[in-house]
Amino acid sequence: MLNFLAVDAGGTSTRAVILGPDGRCIGFGRAAGGNPISSGPERAAAAVVAATRAALDASGATLEGSPPATLALAGSRVHESTDWIAAPLARLGLTSGVVLLSDLLATFSSGGPELDGYAMVSGTGAAAIRVRAGRVDATSDGLGWLLGDTGSGFWIGHQVARAAAAALDGRAPRTRLAELVLEELGIEDDGTRHEEGRLESLRRLTESVYAARPVELARFAPLAFAAGDDRVARAILAEASESTVATLRALVLPELAGPVVLGGGVLGRLDDVPAAIETAQRAAGHVPDVRRVHDGAVGAAVLALRGGGVEVTSEVFERITVTLAALR
Amino acid sequence: MLNFLAVDAGGTSTRAVILGPDGRCIGFGRAAGGNPISSGPERAAAAVVAATRAALDASGATLEGSPPATLALAGSRVHESTDWIAAPLARLGLTSGVVLLSDLLATFSSGGPELDGYAMVSGTGAAAIRVRAGRVDATSDGLGWLLGDTGSGFWIGHQVARAAAAALDGRAPRTRLAELVLEELGIEDDGTRHEEGRLESLRRLTESVYAARPVELARFAPLAFAAGDDRVARAILAEASESTVATLRALVLPELAGPVVLGGGVLGRLDDVPAAIETAQRAAGHVPDVRRVHDGAVGAAVLALRGGGVEVTSEVFERITVTLAALR
Repeated sequence: MLNFLAVDAGGTSTRAVILGPDGRCIGFGRAAGGNPISSGPERAAAAVVAATRAALDASGATLEGSPPATLALAGSRVHESTDWIAAPLARLGLTSGVVLLSDLLATFSSGGPELDGYAMVSGTGAAAIRVRAGRVDATSDGLGWLLGDTGSGFWIGHQVARAAAAALDGRAPRTRLAELVLEELGIEDDGTRHEEGRLESLRRLTESVYAARPVELARFAPLAFAAGDDRVARAILAEASESTVATLRALVLPELAGPVVLGGGVLGRLDDVPAAIETAQRAAGHVPDVRRVHDGAVGAAVLALRGGGVEVTSEVFERITVTLAALR
Repeated sequence: MLNFLAVDAGGTSTRAVILGPDGRCIGFGRAAGGNPISSGPERAAAAVVAATRAALDASGATLEGSPPATLALAGSRVHESTDWIAAPLARLGLTSGVVLLSDLLATFSSGGPELDGYAMVSGTGAAAIRVRAGRVDATSDGLGWLLGDTGSGFWIGHQVARAAAAALDGRAPRTRLAELVLEELGIEDDGTRHEEGRLESLRRLTESVYAARPVELARFAPLAFAAGDDRVARAILAEASESTVATLRALVLPELAGPVVLGGGVLGRLDDVPAAIETAQRAAGHVPDVRRVHDGAVGAAVLALRGGGVEVTSEVFERITVTLAALR
């Protein structure tokens, strides 16, 4: 029996699945981040190979005669070439090449066997897609830290850092959130001020933030969730929720009903988003149907089968889900 | 008679003044940006030297026996060393060294001979100071593009770029502002979309913004002013005005009255700020007194005289202002 290889290559971790044409998953492997943009092509390829090797070892199967592998990753459109990964996978016995697909489409397909609907992911970045006949029909946001990704982990972390700076600067009320940021950076505020009136702790915070890459501001996002009923943190998270819903809502068409599949670590913690999306679905005349998935592994497997001409029925989808869950 | 050298070294231009101890300005020179952080120490030193040489040539004077030069520049606290500029100025005959002072203090001192009060500058960055007994007593914002500078040219430009991206992305209404941004970048939008539903014009805008340094987003700030009654642009400018006033208001103490001196290209165009500041002054029990200056050249001259032990009376201040204006 031919085996399919499906890989969900995220920025922080990569998941590989070996499955048969009936949807039965027989191997699963996990490795570090496998996105060539964020990790660099060599480290990304090494991660994809490591996850694949682990999945092959677990299954005892080979890739001999397999159809092209399906690799789901962010920004898949910009990787016009698969050179960085085709040769490394060929050394594992995959001779038929690699097909790149959007990680958002894998997220959508992790939620169910439907061919129409919507997916929204908010992790370090934030983006949504509309899916029609199994393909990406439209995209919203995902424009990166400088121009978009509104409501994402970077966006929240940036707002947290700015709010802490404004508080220490005396321009905003100083709440627990500012203390959490200082703690995160290991800065103690003993009230020392420079001759021009600046707090030493603010000077150190500023120095620390500018010494790092801007995207690393995402490290402060968890503090907004950890701050409990801190009013500054709550205002930031409320705006993140609102932006996230707006990003999705921009895509919703009355004539295109279907589930909304949510993914990503930040979206999993914005508790008020699912209800707001259900409201948007009702407003469009759709039946409210919001689903949450952990990653795109199931979806990558679904897309691999479809790419090989297999119809993914509810039964096949169910088999992928159940057999993959047992392997994890 | 001894001559004083006062230099106002900004990010985009540098002004040098030669004056006598009575406040009579006898030479003025201008050159490119003289801030070692933004221009690099070598180009900054070359600009300060060029402006100084032009001022000396215009005056026919020398720096023999002059007291230390006064150099006003942004972030003066971080330049603990004057090595980058002391030797180049020594080659022009200045043997007594250089004293660095805050450009905000020079802005304040350009507004009048008072020793107490406030100054606010908003250009590419934004910051305010409280001045007590002729020295910087407290500072507000000026924390740079990533952590602060709220309401500045960078901040406005960034909001303009994000708003244009959101409009082209279909997440926000598309107003004239988005067209101005495309024009500024030389991008024509013929409505072409990629297979995943993205506008080609948005792809090009994104590519162009990420190819430049983030601070270059300030180039879009003038578009907010040029957009007339565009509602997106007006909302951005209203928030900029509000933030600017908040930055200043954080410093105002009822017991410290004095003029509020405004400088910087952006602040000169936020028309509603002066009235809002007068309101803040009244709220603090002060007599409303808002003054606007073009740069810190007069103030650098004031600070040079004070550094040399000269009392800058209203009469001396008036003489600096009048004689310098005649030289420009």
